[in-house]
Amino acid sequence: MIIDKETLSAYENRYRATFINSLAGIKQAFLIGTKSKDGFSNLAIFNSLIHIGANPPLWGFICRPDVVKRDTLNNILETGYYTINYVSATDFSKAHKTSAKFSKEISEFDACGFTEVYNAAVDVPFVAEAHIKVLMKLQQKIDITINNTIMIIGSIEQIEIDKSIVSADGFVALDKSNTLACAGLDAYYATYLIDRLQYATTDALPLTK
Amino acid sequence: MIIDKETLSAYENRYRATFINSLAGIKQAFLIGTKSKDGFSNLAIFNSLIHIGANPPLWGFICRPDVVKRDTLNNILETGYYTINYVSATDFSKAHKTSAKFSKEISEFDACGFTEVYNAAVDVPFVAEAHIKVLMKLQQKIDITINNTIMIIGSIEQIEIDKSIVSADGFVALDKSNTLACAGLDAYYATYLIDRLQYATTDALPLTK
Repeated sequence: MIIDKETLSAYENRYRATFINSLAGIKQAFLIGTKSKDGFSNLAIFNSLIHIGANPPLWGFICRPDVVKRDTLNNILETGYYTINYVSATDFSKAHKTSAKFSKEISEFDACGFTEVYNAAVDVPFVAEAHIKVLMKLQQKIDITINNTIMIIGSIEQIEIDKSIVSADGFVALDKSNTLACAGLDAYYATYLIDRLQYATTDALPLTK
Repeated sequence: MIIDKETLSAYENRYRATFINSLAGIKQAFLIGTKSKDGFSNLAIFNSLIHIGANPPLWGFICRPDVVKRDTLNNILETGYYTINYVSATDFSKAHKTSAKFSKEISEFDACGFTEVYNAAVDVPFVAEAHIKVLMKLQQKIDITINNTIMIIGSIEQIEIDKSIVSADGFVALDKSNTLACAGLDAYYATYLIDRLQYATTDALPLTK
């Protein structure tokens, strides 16, 4: 079927949100850990990790200021630091629960069954259960004026990872550690590797299907 | 192991690029189709689709102006339109080949074994083999000054999709159509659904693991 712009705009709001969000595809799920200046920890699930560059190592993610994850944004702007934590696919229902609207005083670590841990020189919480833990430092806040969303760009300051999933050439085999992926607002996925290919050139690769 | 910032910056460039890029996770793979003002078609693989908002429906992606995919960016800026095409996981090696450096006069559609098709009122090519075809209109170009990358934000103008993979609530089950996902620059993945969960509230979900 072909859906044109007029049909899309006539969709009921929640249907359209589910449709457009899930259509955008399956992505890495990750938990962002932060702490407010007055000492309240926060944990929230995101799936919009954006690779901005490797040298220096920069990642971004999208924040919607009008939704429940405002604590994450506020804490990052207050302290300049946050953590990115990759959990196992078996933890999907605990991870999903962090998207509920808890009041600022309640730590999602406790409420959702994750353990806070401090593994860096900075006072920002990691998820103990996460098999990959990344310390991020805020570098740039970009206002996306077209719909009032925000892109937060941070630099990678520290990575804690199991050596066994890093290949000789630097490739991280996330499927080996059964890392959680998700699509839209509520669908959780596991992944498996089909193949890794050589750097593509105009003549080296056969046209196999 | 813990990798600190100094260790990261001492990595050999290609190793670091592979490491940081693959660590950023598994994401939807998609082919962007464009046409230059003087009539040359272009097709290139990307994996940085960013959901910006559903109302209006807006998606973004990241462009590195210094890499081989410059034709895509130039064509979008020239004509204001591009297509996003989702191919099947079985087409991964043809899709990967579009990342090779072809000269502007050579169409990656022909060179990589995909078929050009024109399914919209605009003169911009879709991939006939794609099971989801989306027409995008350029809305905003954001310069990410921190490392000279660019985010292109477009509005969804038209979607061609098989009705059978859209659920009653709007959810698109991409795994049902065996849609290709990838990580880093060369690793291709397939995905399978674990579960969909209810909207999370602070009391409704049990703390199951």
